[in-house]
Amino acid sequence: MFFGDSITAAGIKPGGYIMKIDSMLKLQGLSEQYELIGAGVSANKVTDLYLRLEEDVLAKSPDIVVIYIGVNDVWHKRTSGTGTDADKFERFYNAILKKLADKNIKAILCTPAAIGERTDMTNDFDGDLNKYCAIIRGIATKNNLPLVDLRKALLDYNLKNNPDNKEAGILTTDKVHLNAKGNEVVASEMLKTIKNYQ
Amino acid sequence: MFFGDSITAAGIKPGGYIMKIDSMLKLQGLSEQYELIGAGVSANKVTDLYLRLEEDVLAKSPDIVVIYIGVNDVWHKRTSGTGTDADKFERFYNAILKKLADKNIKAILCTPAAIGERTDMTNDFDGDLNKYCAIIRGIATKNNLPLVDLRKALLDYNLKNNPDNKEAGILTTDKVHLNAKGNEVVASEMLKTIKNYQ
Amino acid sequence: MFFGDSITAAGIKPGGYIMKIDSMLKLQGLSEQYELIGAGVSANKVTDLYLRLEEDVLAKSPDIVVIYIGVNDVWHKRTSGTGTDADKFERFYNAILKKLADKNIKAILCTPAAIGERTDMTNDFDGDLNKYCAIIRGIATKNNLPLVDLRKALLDYNLKNNPDNKEAGILTTDKVHLNAKGNEVVASEMLKTIKNYQ
Amino acid sequence: MFFGDSITAAGIKPGGYIMKIDSMLKLQGLSEQYELIGAGVSANKVTDLYLRLEEDVLAKSPDIVVIYIGVNDVWHKRTSGTGTDADKFERFYNAILKKLADKNIKAILCTPAAIGERTDMTNDFDGDLNKYCAIIRGIATKNNLPLVDLRKALLDYNLKNNPDNKEAGILTTDKVHLNAKGNEVVASEMLKTIKNYQ
Repeated sequence: MFFGDSITAAGIKPGGYIMKIDSMLKLQGLSEQYELIGAGVSANKVTDLYLRLEEDVLAKSPDIVVIYIGVNDVWHKRTSGTGTDADKFERFYNAILKKLADKNIKAILCTPAAIGERTDMTNDFDGDLNKYCAIIRGIATKNNLPLVDLRKALLDYNLKNNPDNKEAGILTTDKVHLNAKGNEVVASEMLKTIKNYQ
Repeated sequence: MFFGDSITAAGIKPGGYIMKIDSMLKLQGLSEQYELIGAGVSANKVTDLYLRLEEDVLAKSPDIVVIYIGVNDVWHKRTSGTGTDADKFERFYNAILKKLADKNIKAILCTPAAIGERTDMTNDFDGDLNKYCAIIRGIATKNNLPLVDLRKALLDYNLKNNPDNKEAGILTTDKVHLNAKGNEVVASEMLKTIKNYQ
Repeated sequence: MFFGDSITAAGIKPGGYIMKIDSMLKLQGLSEQYELIGAGVSANKVTDLYLRLEEDVLAKSPDIVVIYIGVNDVWHKRTSGTGTDADKFERFYNAILKKLADKNIKAILCTPAAIGERTDMTNDFDGDLNKYCAIIRGIATKNNLPLVDLRKALLDYNLKNNPDNKEAGILTTDKVHLNAKGNEVVASEMLKTIKNYQ
Repeated sequence: MFFGDSITAAGIKPGGYIMKIDSMLKLQGLSEQYELIGAGVSANKVTDLYLRLEEDVLAKSPDIVVIYIGVNDVWHKRTSGTGTDADKFERFYNAILKKLADKNIKAILCTPAAIGERTDMTNDFDGDLNKYCAIIRGIATKNNLPLVDLRKALLDYNLKNNPDNKEAGILTTDKVHLNAKGNEVVASEMLKTIKNYQ
C-alpha cells in the first residue's frame, strides 16, 4: 500500500509510479506476488496521514506500507501558513509507525523528492526540505526501517541531466508532481526496496 | 485541570487566572471541594495538546479538564507558517474530547480570547480567530459540553472599557497574554462554569 | 484611468466594472465627457503600482486616477509570504499620491472590497483587511481626497442579501473577484464619485 | 557609508564590524583616508532602504555606499508574511543603485551571509537565501559593481570550522547576527573590497 499525498494520488493514474511498479512486476514475472493499493490524498501532510490511518490503512491490513509524505508539511508553511513544525512532523511520523508496528504491518519510508529541481540549492524550499529529509532518514535509522531516498535519487538524476539548472521539466511537471521520467525513477527506486523487503 | 498554552502556563504564576480561581474558591469557602492543576505549555496548539494528552492529563485522572487552546493555531500561521488548518483543528479537538470521554473525564471548552484588543475588528487576526471560535462553539453544541466564551467576554469588556480602541493594555499586556484585570475576568468566567458543572 | 490589480484587470472584460461604468455613462448621455482606461495587473500590490506608475500612468497623463489596491497586500501574507507591512503600505501609497499630485493628476481612492463575503467577521483575513481599509480612509482624509468605500458598500449589500453567511457567490465568484452583481455595485459606487469630482 | 539592517546597526557598537574596519584602517595607517558612517536600521528590507535612501544616504553625500541587505526580505516571509518577492527585490535594488549612480555615489554590494550556519544546506531558509544571493551576484555583474560575497565567505569558514554542523555559535550568536569572530570575518572581507575600490 502506497500512503501519501497528491504525488501518490497521481501514482494510480495511467503512467503513474504505482502503475509503473505494476508493469515492472509483470515484466519480471512477479505480479502474482504483489497486490498494489494506492492511498494518496491531495494536500496531505503527516497529520492527515495520522488522522486517516485507521480507516484507510489499518482497516485494510496491508503487508507493507510505503510512506511518502513531507512535501506539503514544508510547502504549506508559505502557501497557507499551515505547514508542520519539525518536532511535530517527527512525533506524528513516529506515532504512525507505532500503530503500524502494533499491527505487524511493515513500513518503508521515503524522503520527499523535490519542490523545484534546480541543482544548486536555490529552490525556495531546499533548506527546509533537506531538514525534513534528514528527520526521515533519522527515523529510518532509529527504527531500523528501509528507506527509499527519493530526494537523493532525484537530485542525483538532475545533477546529470539538468545542466541548465531548470526549476521544473526534468522529472517534474511543476516542481513537485512527477512527469513520465519522474514516475519511472520513483517506481524503479521503490521497487528495489520493496523486493528486498520480505 | 487547566489544559492549554502559555496563557494557561502563566495561570499558575502569582496573579495568574488559576491562582485567582483558587482565591475566589477560598473566599467562597469552597476550596476543599476543588484541587486545581495547571497544565499549560507555551506555544501549544491543538496538536500539541493531543500529543501530550496521555502523559499530562489522562495519567493524572482529573475530574474536569478545562481546554483553553486556539490562539497559536491561528497566530502561528503568520509567525512561523505552522498554524493549524481549520478542518484539522476540529478533528484533533474532537479526538481529544473522545479520549477524555472514554475515561469519563468531563470537559469544559473555552474560546481563545484575543490576539489584539481593538474593538472594531481591525486586529490582524480577528477574522481567523472568530472562525476558530465559531468552530469551538460548534463543537460544544454538538457534544453538549459547557463553553466558557472568553472571546465574547473579553470583547464585551473592551467594548465598555476600551474607548480609544487600543491594541493592548486593557485586559492583555501584549495583545495575547493576560494582565491582572484580564486574569480576573477569565477566572471569574471560568469559575461560574466550573461551579455549575457537577 | 483605473489603476489596480486583477479585479481591475477584469474590469475591462465584458461585464467588468469599467465596462459597466462606460455603459452607465452612455445611458446618461455623458459618454463623450469621459474616456475610460484600464490599468489593472494581476497580483499587484501597492509596491507594484509604485514601480509601474511612471510608465503605465504618468506617461499617459490621465485627468483622474482611481486607485483600487490592497487585497493582495493582505492576502499574499499567507499565500506567498510576501504581503506588505502596514507602515510600508501607507508610505508607498503616499509616494504614489505625491507623484500624481506633482503632475496635477487627480486621485480617487478605494478600499479593497472583500476576501470572503461572510458578514459576521469570520472571513480569514477580515481583521487585517479592515486594518488596511482604515489606513486608506485615513490617507483620504489627510489628503482631502475622495474615497469610494467599496469595503463598506459590499459589506452593506451582503448584510441585506447574504442571510446564509456565504463565503462567496453574492458579489464575488471566489471571495475576491467580482461577479455580475459585484461589478454592478462597484461600477455604481465609483461612478457617483467620479461624476462629483471635477 | 554602511547601509543595511540590524546586522549593520550592530556594526557601530563596540566589537561591531564597522568598528573593526575602523581599527584595521588605523593599524594600517589609513584611518585618515576614510570616514566610516553606519546607516543600519533593524528589520530593514530592500523596500525600507529605498524609502529612506534620500534622507539617510543621498542627503549625506557619501563617496561609497556598502549595501548589505536581504536577510529580512527572505526571513520575514515566514515570520511575518511580509517578505519581498524575488522580482521586486531586484527592481527595488536596481532603483537604489540608479539613484546612487545619478549622484555619482559608488556602490559596493554584499550578499546576505546567513540564516543558520549549518553547512549541509538544511537551514530552513537556505534555498531562498541562496536564490536572493544569486540575484545580488547577477546585479553586481550586470552593473559591473564590486561584490563582497559574505554568503560564500561565511559558508567557507563554516565548512572548515563547524564540523558539528551547528546552527549558530560559529560566526553568529543566533543564526543571523554576528558574534566577535563573525564581525571580524565580515570586516576583513569588506575592507579588502573597499581598499580596492577607488
